[in-house]
This record gives sequence, structure tokens and C-alpha cells, in this order.
Amino acid sequence: MKIALDAMGGDFGPPNIVSGAVMALNEYPHIGKLFLVGDTPQIEAELKKHDCTDGRIEIVHASQVVEMHDRAVDAVRRKKDSSVSRAVDLVKKGDAAAIVSAGHTGAAVAATAIKLRTLPGVDRPGIAAVIPSETNVFVLIDAGANSDPRPEHMVEYAIMGSVYSRHVLGYENPSVGLMSIGDEDMKGSDLTKEVFKMLKQSDLNFRGNIEGHDLFADPVEVVVCDGFVGNVILKTCESIGDAIFKWLKHELMKTKTRMVGAYLARNAFLTIRKKVNYEEYGGMPLLGVNGICIIAHGASTPKAIKNALRAAAESIEQQVNPHIVEKVRRHHEKATSLEPTLR
Amino acid sequence: MKIALDAMGGDFGPPNIVSGAVMALNEYPHIGKLFLVGDTPQIEAELKKHDCTDGRIEIVHASQVVEMHDRAVDAVRRKKDSSVSRAVDLVKKGDAAAIVSAGHTGAAVAATAIKLRTLPGVDRPGIAAVIPSETNVFVLIDAGANSDPRPEHMVEYAIMGSVYSRHVLGYENPSVGLMSIGDEDMKGSDLTKEVFKMLKQSDLNFRGNIEGHDLFADPVEVVVCDGFVGNVILKTCESIGDAIFKWLKHELMKTKTRMVGAYLARNAFLTIRKKVNYEEYGGMPLLGVNGICIIAHGASTPKAIKNALRAAAESIEQQVNPHIVEKVRRHHEKATSLEPTLR
Repeated sequence: MKIALDAMGGDFGPPNIVSGAVMALNEYPHIGKLFLVGDTPQIEAELKKHDCTDGRIEIVHASQVVEMHDRAVDAVRRKKDSSVSRAVDLVKKGDAAAIVSAGHTGAAVAATAIKLRTLPGVDRPGIAAVIPSETNVFVLIDAGANSDPRPEHMVEYAIMGSVYSRHVLGYENPSVGLMSIGDEDMKGSDLTKEVFKMLKQSDLNFRGNIEGHDLFADPVEVVVCDGFVGNVILKTCESIGDAIFKWLKHELMKTKTRMVGAYLARNAFLTIRKKVNYEEYGGMPLLGVNGICIIAHGASTPKAIKNALRAAAESIEQQVNPHIVEKVRRHHEKATSLEPTLR
Repeated sequence: MKIALDAMGGDFGPPNIVSGAVMALNEYPHIGKLFLVGDTPQIEAELKKHDCTDGRIEIVHASQVVEMHDRAVDAVRRKKDSSVSRAVDLVKKGDAAAIVSAGHTGAAVAATAIKLRTLPGVDRPGIAAVIPSETNVFVLIDAGANSDPRPEHMVEYAIMGSVYSRHVLGYENPSVGLMSIGDEDMKGSDLTKEVFKMLKQSDLNFRGNIEGHDLFADPVEVVVCDGFVGNVILKTCESIGDAIFKWLKHELMKTKTRMVGAYLARNAFLTIRKKVNYEEYGGMPLLGVNGICIIAHGASTPKAIKNALRAAAESIEQQVNPHIVEKVRRHHEKATSLEPTLR
């Protein structure tokens, strides 16, 4: 199993990325090769810090980095020697099966979509975020690849999210919900009303609309939305989580009794703080491209990078892409057979 | 000051509503008249429980109630004697200046928009939610009145949200942000990119796009979005708040030390629990209709109803609607003068 890691991406650059890579190599013997793509001297210096001489590492030099202020498509066209572009090239050439990047999300999406193209039958890739619910996890797709999808793109998201939920997260027959603002089929936007009809006709385990206030109460295993709404949800959750802990800290400092209480219970706070901190998470697969692409949070910790590499390995092992191709093919076959035969 | 209260709306019906009404009358002497609209025997029974014989109360009988499963516009057309319709009628006739309802949000929006019409110059009303940020509050508009607005509707939301922020919340020159998924003008959906251009040309204190992860970090005083996104944000925040407290409770029960800590700090938890609990909040003004309309949470506590009545009173006192009309008029004048003179 061969993975290409963009060693320059992310808010903290090579130190966190290389540290996460070393952790992953120690924990996952089934990673056969790990390409670290980026500035060779910086990567070598980081590897030296960890006394890492793992023979599975191969450094691939790239002289450029996509900066956060770069525009996604421009960056792919102009910075041909960027770490993310070079990493995607390794997948294109067949040297690696997956790419992991914590850099500019738009650039990773654009580079992958432009260079690798989409899987047969898939029109638009979608980012799948795995989010903890009250007692479990669910997949939110699309978390930001495409702000203005057409209804049929959202049906593809539902299919791809179901495949990921089944083959990587292990849900036998994942239930699918459509993010909307009312639980009836007549409620929602023009877009969601159209998607509702299409999902109802599909073979998916579709449970109808779900509303924001049920999102974390485990209503379904896959939540479908457009990339604008998905991105807003993901980032708003981080923001409200931060706010709640700041408010709580402020309240806990108000009296000595509360301070003692907070000290005694501190480990509980730390556990939950981490749970809402998406920077700790393993990264989000960009589903629908012809290759595995895992997008990690810009502020990824080394542990998050390690988890992103694990997500890449699992997606390869579980053959997520062949399963998507098969499910999408069957969906299109069924949709075609349902069409009126009038021509 | 005269206010019409839909006494039947909300998940708990007359008990919570009437209880909140009694609290409001005791606290706010400037409420001159309070119409309680709904089933007379039920309302009288509730008033009796509170030994309330306040002469400012007038019961207006209505024989029907809009149920949660009713479709909004249908309900307004068919249930002509519903409590929410009758309450709006009181505003239409000039007997009251404001309506407060904790019932079916869609029906309240539809009844108000159909019967009272919009203010001069306003095309679409928008729901303004006042949300606590890390250290303050901000207005989120539209929180769910209109799922598919046109760009010009969102500019109206920005103007109306600014007026509310200034005249009711007291911000001198409220800053306005556009909810989007990137901080640059080139990022976002087709809709937000168009709105961005229009807001930039306006006289508003526009600060550009804001992203979900900054939402609670006090970036601006007014956040503009379409009603679909706004409703998703509002309800998702409730949901993640609930989830965080459930996770925390679970962690706090894990050891005896933590349980003792939680007991000592319990008041801090209660305070924050209430802060994230929108059921405690005072209701959201529907801005842009020709009359004051405050929409309270379906699960409103009596205190929330009291606060909703206060919001109605403040909107009347601060002349929110005349200020909106004036600001919208000036905006349209400026927009017309900027148009190319070619015809």
C-alpha cells in the first residue's frame, strides 16, 4: 500500500506532518511506502528530529507550496511544482494509491478533480466528514467541495456516503437523511425538494428530511447536503463548541467551590474538548475522484495526520472506489429503466 | 401599547403562554393592553390558576389552532378562526401593534405576510434571531422565513438586521457580515458572491464574508444568510449544545472524583446550559412586515414568553418599522442613482 503525503500543507507545515507520518509508520505496518512530498531539506530535518530512517519513506521534492490566499484552480494551473500537485501526480502515475493533504482544501479538491478526474458515473466529488453524534458517528456529505450542486450531484453524495459508511465505518445498511428545515417532503428549499423526490425513488435506505436540531441525536448514518450548507455546519459546530467551553470556563472561575469542582472533574472536560475539536480528527475523504484523497484539517495535530493516513489506508483496503463505481452504475441503470420510454 | 398574544401556540399550549403573559404584565407596566387569543375556557382556567384579574387582559376567542403538521399557507387560508390568524387580524385592524406567537412558525410568517403585507420597499420579510456570541450577542437574519431568497432580499435582510441591532440592541453602527465558506469575495455560492457585491456597494458597515468557525467569536453584529442556512445554523447549534452536555454528563459520571467535582460546579453547568438553550430566549422578530411580529420557540418556557412580549414592546417603543422603511428607502434611492442611465 502506497500513500503520498503533502508534507508542506497545513497551518504548522512540515513539523506536524512529518511527526504524524512517523507515528503512522510505527503503528501501521501495512503501509508499504510513504512518499513525503515537499521541500527536501525541511523534510529531512524533521525526520532527523525523530531519528527516523524508515526505509518505507521516500522524499519527493516539490519547490512550491499553495498558500491559503491562493485561488484554488489558479494554484493548480500556475504552481505546477507545488507539494499538493506533485503528490496528486504520484497517484496519477500509479506510484501511489492515495494522497493525504492538510493544506489548502480548495487546491487539494481542484488538483485531484483536474488531474485524476472523477470515477466513472460520478459527476462531482464530495467531501465526507465523519462527525461524532451523541452515541456514535455519522457521515456529512458534502462538507465543502461544491457550493452549488445540482440535485443529481446530491444523489451521488448519498450513494458515496453510504458506501463509505458501510465499507469503512461498518454500518450494514446505512440510513440516509436529507438535511432540510422541516421533516416533511414539502418543506425545504427548491433544491432539497427536488433531491427528496430523487432519493425516495433510489435504492438507498432513505429516511427523509432531517433537521438541524436532530443532527447529533443519531437520526441517520449519512446526512446529505450541498457543500455550502455542509461547510457551514462543520465550522459552526467547531465555533459553538469553542464558545461553550469559554463560557463554561468563565463560569467555573467565578467561585472557589466551582474552581475546586472544575479541578476534580478536569479530565472529563479534556475528553469532551477533544471530541468537539475537529483538529484532532483524521481527515475527510474526497469521494468520487479516481484515486483516494484524504483532506486533513489545516490545524491538524500529528495525531490527526496519523489518523488521516489510517483513513487513506482503510479506504484503499476496503476498496471504497470500486464499490462506489458499482453502486453508481446500478443507480444509473435503475434510473434509466424508470425513465419513460418515449423518445 | 397593545399586544396580541397567540395563547394556543407552542408545544405546551395555554399553560406556558398564559403564565408568561402574567409574568410580563407584572414586570412591564407600559404594556397597556394584552389580547390573549384562543380558546376562552382554557385561557380563563389558566388565568384563574394565577389568580390573575389584570384589567389590561382581554380574551379574544378563536375556535381553531394551527397544528404542527398543517401546511403554512393552507392553514392561513382554511383555518380562518385559528388563534394565530385572529391575533394577526387584531394588528391588521389597528387594535394591537404587535403579535407574539410560539406556534407553527410557517403559519405565523404566512399569516403576517399575507394579512399585513410587507413594509414599503421591502420585498420579503426575514426572521432575525438574536444569538449569544462568546462575549456578546449578534443578529442572524434570515433564520428561516425564506429558503430561496434572491440577492436583493438578502440585502434587505442586512438593512433590517442593522436597524434592529442599532435600535433594539443598541449598537451604534452595527457591522454586517455575510455568511459564507471562505473569507474572500471570490469564495462562496453563486448567491453569496452576488450578495457580496451588492453589500459592498451599500451604505452598510459591511465587513465581508464570515465563516462558520468565526461565528461565535464576535466578528460582526449582524450575520446575513438565506433562510435555509440560517435555520440550519440555529437548529444545529441547539443540537450540538445538547450533545456536548450529554457527552459531558457521561464523562462526569465515570469516576467518584469527577462526580464530586461536577456537584461542586453544578451552578456553572446550569448557567451555560440555559445560555445554549434557545427555549429560554425571547423570540425572534419577523422583520419587514407591516406590524411587529415576534416568533417564540415552540418549546418556550413562561420566561421565554415573557421575554418575547418584552421584545415586542421594545420593537414598538424603538420604532423599528419606521426606521426600516426609512433605511430601505434611502438604500433604493442610492441604488437607483448608481444605475447606468442608459435605458
